[in-house]
Amino acid sequence: MTAPLHEGRPTTTRRALPDTQQGMRRRNLARVLHAVSDEGPLSRAAIASRIGLTRAAVSTLVDELVRWGLLEELGPERPNRVGRPGSALAVSGRGPAGIGAEVGVDHLSVCAVDLRGEVRARAVRHGANRGRAPKPVVQELTALVRQVVADAEREGLWPAGLAVAVPGLVARDGHTVVHAPNLDWHGTDLRALLPADLPPTVDNEANFGALAELWLGDATPPDFLHVSAEIGIGAAVVVDGRLLRGKRGFAGELGHVPVHPDGPRCACGGRGCLEQYAGEEAVLRAAGLEPRGDAVGVLAQRAGEDHEGARRALEDAGRALGIALTGAVNLLDPEAVVLGGALAGLAPWLLPSLRNELADRTTGPACPVTVSRLGSEGPLLGAAHSVVRAVLDDPARVTERS
Amino acid sequence: MTAPLHEGRPTTTRRALPDTQQGMRRRNLARVLHAVSDEGPLSRAAIASRIGLTRAAVSTLVDELVRWGLLEELGPERPNRVGRPGSALAVSGRGPAGIGAEVGVDHLSVCAVDLRGEVRARAVRHGANRGRAPKPVVQELTALVRQVVADAEREGLWPAGLAVAVPGLVARDGHTVVHAPNLDWHGTDLRALLPADLPPTVDNEANFGALAELWLGDATPPDFLHVSAEIGIGAAVVVDGRLLRGKRGFAGELGHVPVHPDGPRCACGGRGCLEQYAGEEAVLRAAGLEPRGDAVGVLAQRAGEDHEGARRALEDAGRALGIALTGAVNLLDPEAVVLGGALAGLAPWLLPSLRNELADRTTGPACPVTVSRLGSEGPLLGAAHSVVRAVLDDPARVTERS
Repeated sequence: MTAPLHEGRPTTTRRALPDTQQGMRRRNLARVLHAVSDEGPLSRAAIASRIGLTRAAVSTLVDELVRWGLLEELGPERPNRVGRPGSALAVSGRGPAGIGAEVGVDHLSVCAVDLRGEVRARAVRHGANRGRAPKPVVQELTALVRQVVADAEREGLWPAGLAVAVPGLVARDGHTVVHAPNLDWHGTDLRALLPADLPPTVDNEANFGALAELWLGDATPPDFLHVSAEIGIGAAVVVDGRLLRGKRGFAGELGHVPVHPDGPRCACGGRGCLEQYAGEEAVLRAAGLEPRGDAVGVLAQRAGEDHEGARRALEDAGRALGIALTGAVNLLDPEAVVLGGALAGLAPWLLPSLRNELADRTTGPACPVTVSRLGSEGPLLGAAHSVVRAVLDDPARVTERS
Repeated sequence: MTAPLHEGRPTTTRRALPDTQQGMRRRNLARVLHAVSDEGPLSRAAIASRIGLTRAAVSTLVDELVRWGLLEELGPERPNRVGRPGSALAVSGRGPAGIGAEVGVDHLSVCAVDLRGEVRARAVRHGANRGRAPKPVVQELTALVRQVVADAEREGLWPAGLAVAVPGLVARDGHTVVHAPNLDWHGTDLRALLPADLPPTVDNEANFGALAELWLGDATPPDFLHVSAEIGIGAAVVVDGRLLRGKRGFAGELGHVPVHPDGPRCACGGRGCLEQYAGEEAVLRAAGLEPRGDAVGVLAQRAGEDHEGARRALEDAGRALGIALTGAVNLLDPEAVVLGGALAGLAPWLLPSLRNELADRTTGPACPVTVSRLGSEGPLLGAAHSVVRAVLDDPARVTERS
């Protein structure tokens, strides 16, 4: 059905368009679509004045975007002054949709987001995936994807691409899970397991969570560090609105920053890593609670009930997070640190000691620490929106599907 | 004489050229100049085939670059086959030059680098600047700049811009030194103190050192962490060939990453920062040596003489560097760590324990640690080359000088 709209990772490695008439046309198509997406509905004249092209050039570009189903005419505006009334243009709610999927430790979820950014279809399956082989898990995920695509098609949408969030490290090829410790997956090529008609872009859940924060968060700055805790402690570094990936795609391993360098051995080979103090298992143990599937849920519940051990363990974890984040803030000088994913739910108990530690270790104003509004929804939304952004950034790609 | 060629920082915040015919022409001028700079001398036909434009389009662009003094004709090539012989084009050695300057704790230095990357003039003044007021220091620097510009002009070059490396934090405005602890400068606007006809771009010496490594180093990868020690411990993070600056321009403060979080108080407000273990003063003290102006020189000399205290102190410093770099490598996943600036001279005694620590704390292959060939020359060369790169990246700017 559809060819891949993006190779590798659309959100960070935008394909450089050649500096030719054809490349210029593609970039201008993107500028028109972005103008309407950011500020629309807009008339052709309003688009022209916003992006600095002539009315005639904009009309030609708009015609193409309407033909491809990316823009739609809202009908003639009531003219406020003499002259031919302009027709307002809006981003289409019946064109391409981004399909996002998430493989969680305890769930699978899929959604379809239209070019306007609205979730139009959704499916979830609860059940533990820990220790299951990749193949049956991906088969179930495929069934959910088919269901969501069918629902979206009934609304006049078509899938422009599939992006999958996983709780593990992903190679820079954008489809191989190098290691997902809580699933026990190693070197799993998800592109080979998912249907060939919808080749996926795969990324770490912390990365997609950070992108969701960037795109959908309330006034999220373009430079921030997003910290989440779906598996141990993950982080994503966003610089100038782009994810920092690192050479192998492994950047953001905040969980293995040494906090007490002579501390306990960690599975990573290090000693006294942040995960030994603020990872789910370590915190559960310190709180005197039984290890459980939904560790974060248990901790939040107990801390909410004033369980002394849970509160103290979270306070200590906040202190360890504060030490590791002091190092990260010194290296990166971000505008903010955002606690997202599962950590967002524990913020009330982590934040006081975390903020104290950061402030004590900094001269001048400490880096602000905020809590994500998206919480555990972030990775799934980030995945779907990454496909939508790829279309907005290069609309001509939709003509390349076979 | 010359208007500023770049506002802010040419090397990282390239001015986005508008997507118009004019913008396309400017970008194509840069592509022609880069092609000759990277692979020259080249004929017009060879340029055309390399950058994918027609021979006619390239000829027009070349004519402009020759007229502006950026390219020069080497005369007709010997034709290997029938047809009109093409004339080979080379980057001019008589056009614009980048003027680099460095305010060191114990020296001032200035150089002029031509578009071919060759140092064509140079001046140095030795003498302690620690604790001197900015004004007399900058007056001496200005005299050196005048001398180097005069020398360069005698060779047919003209100054395309001035870039100044300083041992301190620089605001994102690109000209205000927020704090240079070893000079005791605070909030010093160097643009106001330097001559108005050559407004400077100012940056931290660690940043210019890292850029020099990127541009001039042997096979330096596009993603690396550059660690230097002109003042305490500085680092620069290079991602995709660009400096990561941070919100306030303070990124790369490796010296204040907590290594032993309950360790001694640091002037930054923190505890157990890397500088408390691997900064010049701390290492001298641990070695049982007197504090001196050229701490690194003293340490290298004593360690070379097998001074037991110096060797042990450097081994311990290497260990602390290894712990802080483990955190940095986990966060950034760089392709390499490069020891530059003054640290390059201490590498023989720092590296064994540093590498051990990194390897012990990592599963799989540890991030490679290499030593810069440029050493303490890096910041000055990086400054001068930043001006040269600004011209190569947007040659039309040279027409904008008044």
